[in-house]
Amino acid sequence: MPLDHPGEKPHDQLAKRLSADMDAVNTLIRARMASENAPRIPEVTAHLVEAGGKRLRPMMTLAAARMMGYPGDDHVKLAATVEFIHTATLLHDDVVDESSQRRGRPTANLLWDNKSSVLVGDYLFARSFQLMVETGNLRVLDILSNAAATIAEGEVLQLSAAQNLATDEGIYLKVVRGKTAALFSAATEVGGVICGAPEAQVDALRTYGDALGIAFQIVDDLLDYQGDAKATGKNVGDDFRERKLTLPVIKAVAAADAEERAFWSRTIEKGKQEDGDLEHALVLLDRHDALTATRADAMGWVEQAKAALSEVEPADAELHALMLALADYVVERVR
Amino acid sequence: MPLDHPGEKPHDQLAKRLSADMDAVNTLIRARMASENAPRIPEVTAHLVEAGGKRLRPMMTLAAARMMGYPGDDHVKLAATVEFIHTATLLHDDVVDESSQRRGRPTANLLWDNKSSVLVGDYLFARSFQLMVETGNLRVLDILSNAAATIAEGEVLQLSAAQNLATDEGIYLKVVRGKTAALFSAATEVGGVICGAPEAQVDALRTYGDALGIAFQIVDDLLDYQGDAKATGKNVGDDFRERKLTLPVIKAVAAADAEERAFWSRTIEKGKQEDGDLEHALVLLDRHDALTATRADAMGWVEQAKAALSEVEPADAELHALMLALADYVVERVR
Repeated sequence: MPLDHPGEKPHDQLAKRLSADMDAVNTLIRARMASENAPRIPEVTAHLVEAGGKRLRPMMTLAAARMMGYPGDDHVKLAATVEFIHTATLLHDDVVDESSQRRGRPTANLLWDNKSSVLVGDYLFARSFQLMVETGNLRVLDILSNAAATIAEGEVLQLSAAQNLATDEGIYLKVVRGKTAALFSAATEVGGVICGAPEAQVDALRTYGDALGIAFQIVDDLLDYQGDAKATGKNVGDDFRERKLTLPVIKAVAAADAEERAFWSRTIEKGKQEDGDLEHALVLLDRHDALTATRADAMGWVEQAKAALSEVEPADAELHALMLALADYVVERVR
Repeated sequence: MPLDHPGEKPHDQLAKRLSADMDAVNTLIRARMASENAPRIPEVTAHLVEAGGKRLRPMMTLAAARMMGYPGDDHVKLAATVEFIHTATLLHDDVVDESSQRRGRPTANLLWDNKSSVLVGDYLFARSFQLMVETGNLRVLDILSNAAATIAEGEVLQLSAAQNLATDEGIYLKVVRGKTAALFSAATEVGGVICGAPEAQVDALRTYGDALGIAFQIVDDLLDYQGDAKATGKNVGDDFRERKLTLPVIKAVAAADAEERAFWSRTIEKGKQEDGDLEHALVLLDRHDALTATRADAMGWVEQAKAALSEVEPADAELHALMLALADYVVERVR
């Protein structure tokens, strides 16, 4: 049982605790990614779905529902819905970012082509919608369709914000709420909704997911400048090379003098990068304590996530403790 | 009033007859394509939505609902849903086909970029889900989410079928049912469902939309080989140059001798096209009466559409007559 292994990561403990539910989710995902008519659909989907992602988002739906004492089966459908939306988003993201690697493997757009990634992504979006419709719960449909719109809106906003030095922390937060936190918060909120939890507790679950999602993305952006490639699977400087204006750089730009500003403008806005630029970027980030301040922001969001979750009256105290621990673990990687 | 102008096209007569509803649909579309956070979304959407498409699909929802005597407002939401799904599909299609023209204007992927087309398409899909959820009608949600999955499946199937001489009429029909007929049939079916029409009549409306959609696509594919560019806005031979195996060529391939087969293999499968190939393709199509047979198929589907619609007991006989006339008009262009 999970709490017998206190050294184990909360994510792994949750996965063990929810393993029967998670197996049901995986079975459902495999069944629904099939297509009698177009064999390329399951090929492309399997490449991504079977690549060993952490299934963090669907697990949050399962954990929220079970923590609130949900006795039914719809949480499995909703968890699969959330994973399908996430997978569709990854397929389209890799096309948009022209990525060649995801989860340590070549991306689908590289192995097949952009066309397949676009259209299989569309198929998975539609499949996710079919799945949520099967629950017959209109409030859940409202939450998840709003999340899908917010995700796409965040991604479009990122297109114009990413290489623009005028992007401030407010715009960054909007992008992050869209591209990452919207699905986290919908995932936990629907867990509460299907149990018929009181409004205040549904609100708390949504706030937990939102704050956790924001912390998760900030940490991801931070690891891009201070990560250990072996531990995180990320290479330091990818975002810099791809000219993505993330929180650490936004903080350094806000504190920049004219010369520093010219450096960021050349490397991020104009994309004219030379040898040594990444090293100089790291010097500037350090000069203005940008990584420290970014880490503090992430920890602040984790505290908000935990505060919200503390207001929930769980039917299952162990799952409650694991979800609190999960929030801590998100920033654990950058402590 | 429409029937006072018997020479007018049925489509224009329907548009006049339903002009108040259509205005409401256009107003709703403009309101919902807005995005406070990402101004590129309404820019890209407006480029396509305001380009003067015929709004055929949303009009079919309005016509079906009103014909069956629907007194409410949800048909407007569903018509806007159908147009959003259609617009999202066009944005993604133009990326997949690497198209540069649509409705006589440069495509969004050319004016902005593929990224914007992919992500704004995703946004419109999500917006369409939000709109349909607002009707609160689970059966409608089931029909439209199934249609969205069938559309994407048809598009993926087309990827592998388009340049493959093994593609036969059965596969062609699956592709067409997906990429075109699924939305036509869902558009008319939901019109009947929201009125609470009897099952047999809902079936008839679905069959009408399915058959009309198939006829519409076959005619489109036929016009590509025999159209008048001025009248249709299509250049003869676009599908041939893009190596799309459509029904006329499928019929010619089925009747081809070894030499002809080698020609189709070189031009369509291998894409090695030379001057004079289109003219030779037209000779081969003519030799095997492929265009005549394709036209006959389209007319057969129109007859099926009309037969289905004849089983409906309309509350509004004039709309019923116009929808029957619309079916005839679909093949009128190639008579």
